[in-house]
Amino acid sequence: MKQKQSKFFIRTSGRRLYDISEALSEQVGTSGIISGLLSLYIPHSSASLLIQENYDPEVLRDLERFFDRLVPQGDPLFHHTSEGPDDMPAHVRSALTAVSLSIPILDAQLALGTWQGVFLYEHRTSQHSRSILCHMIGE
Amino acid sequence: MKQKQSKFFIRTSGRRLYDISEALSEQVGTSGIISGLLSLYIPHSSASLLIQENYDPEVLRDLERFFDRLVPQGDPLFHHTSEGPDDMPAHVRSALTAVSLSIPILDAQLALGTWQGVFLYEHRTSQHSRSILCHMIGE
Amino acid sequence: MKQKQSKFFIRTSGRRLYDISEALSEQVGTSGIISGLLSLYIPHSSASLLIQENYDPEVLRDLERFFDRLVPQGDPLFHHTSEGPDDMPAHVRSALTAVSLSIPILDAQLALGTWQGVFLYEHRTSQHSRSILCHMIGE
Repeated sequence: MKQKQSKFFIRTSGRRLYDISEALSEQVGTSGIISGLLSLYIPHSSASLLIQENYDPEVLRDLERFFDRLVPQGDPLFHHTSEGPDDMPAHVRSALTAVSLSIPILDAQLALGTWQGVFLYEHRTSQHSRSILCHMIGE
Repeated sequence: MKQKQSKFFIRTSGRRLYDISEALSEQVGTSGIISGLLSLYIPHSSASLLIQENYDPEVLRDLERFFDRLVPQGDPLFHHTSEGPDDMPAHVRSALTAVSLSIPILDAQLALGTWQGVFLYEHRTSQHSRSILCHMIGE
Repeated sequence: MKQKQSKFFIRTSGRRLYDISEALSEQVGTSGIISGLLSLYIPHSSASLLIQENYDPEVLRDLERFFDRLVPQGDPLFHHTSEGPDDMPAHVRSALTAVSLSIPILDAQLALGTWQGVFLYEHRTSQHSRSILCHMIGE
C-alpha cells in the first residue's frame, strides 16, 4: 500500500465550470497507483468541485443559469457585501456543492462514468488562480 | 493495511430514493475489513448518493417533493432538453446532492447513525440500471 | 501506512454553524500522521458538515438566512411534521450539504485554505449532542 500527494493549479476567468478530468488523469498516471482511491480537495471558499455530464456544453450553461437564479447577486438577504456582490453568493454556491470528492482508481485510471467529467466550479466573476489537492492511495 | 474494491447494481424504476444500506453491509462483511473506511462512488450523472433518515418513509417522499419543486421539470430556464424534460433537472439535482460518500467501518460494520440509511437517489423518471463502486481500506 | 479512528462530541444550542477546526487539529496532532487524509463523518440526519469562510461571522449568518429561506419551517409541502416544524427542513438541509468530508493532511496539519474553517452545521432549533467520527490514514 502506498500514497501520493500532489497539487495543481487552474487559472479561472469568471463564473463557470472548468474541466479538470485530463489534469486528474495525469496525476493518477504519474502516481503509479493501479488500484485505489483518489481524493480531491479544493482549499478555497468560493470555488468547488463537481462531477457533471461532459458531453453537451449546454448542460454546464444550464447549471450555471440554475445556480445564478437560486443564489442571485445583489440579494438583499445578504449582509456580507464588502468583498463584492458575487462574494456571498459564491460562499452559498460552495456550500450547496462539494469541496471534496473521492473517485476510485481502477486499472490505473479514474473510474468515471462514460458521461462524467470532473469540474472545478468557479463562483467568482473575476480572475483567480485556484489550487486543487490530490491524495491517492492504493497499490 | 489492505483494500478491496467492489461493484454492485441497482435497478431503479422512477424518481425516488432506494435504500442500499443492506447491500453495503454485505460488501463490508465480505471484505474482511474490521476497522477502516468505505468510500462509495456513483458513476452516473443523473443519480446520486444520499444519507437520510431511514425510519419514516414520509421523509423520503417529502425530500422528493422538495427537489421536484426546487428543480421543476419543464423549467424554461433549461436549454438542454433533447434527452427529455427530466434530464436537465436530474443533472442539477445530482449537483446539489453527492456522488461520493465516505463512511467509517467500525467492528466490521458501517458506522451509520441509528436513524441513518444510505440511499441511491434516482433522478430520472424511466427505468435504469445503476452501478455503485465501493472502495474499502483498513485492517 | 497506518490508520487511526477517533470520535468527539459537540454540544449544540440551535440552528447555526459551529467551528470544529481546532478540535480536528487536535485529532490530527495526536494521530501521529504527518502526511495522509482525514475523512470526517457525521452520524446524524439533521446536522451536517461544511467548509466555509472563517473570517467574517456575517458569512455564517448569511448562510443561515439563505437556508432558512430556501427550506422554510412550516412549509405546507412537508407531510413529516410529527417531530416538530424544524425536523423535515433539517433533513432537507442535510441533503443539500455534506455528511462526509475528506481533507488532506500535510506536514501534520490539515491542508485547509487560508480562509477555510470546518463547521458542524446544526439544523435543529433545540439543544443536541452531536458526535463526529474521524478516520485518518497515512504515514
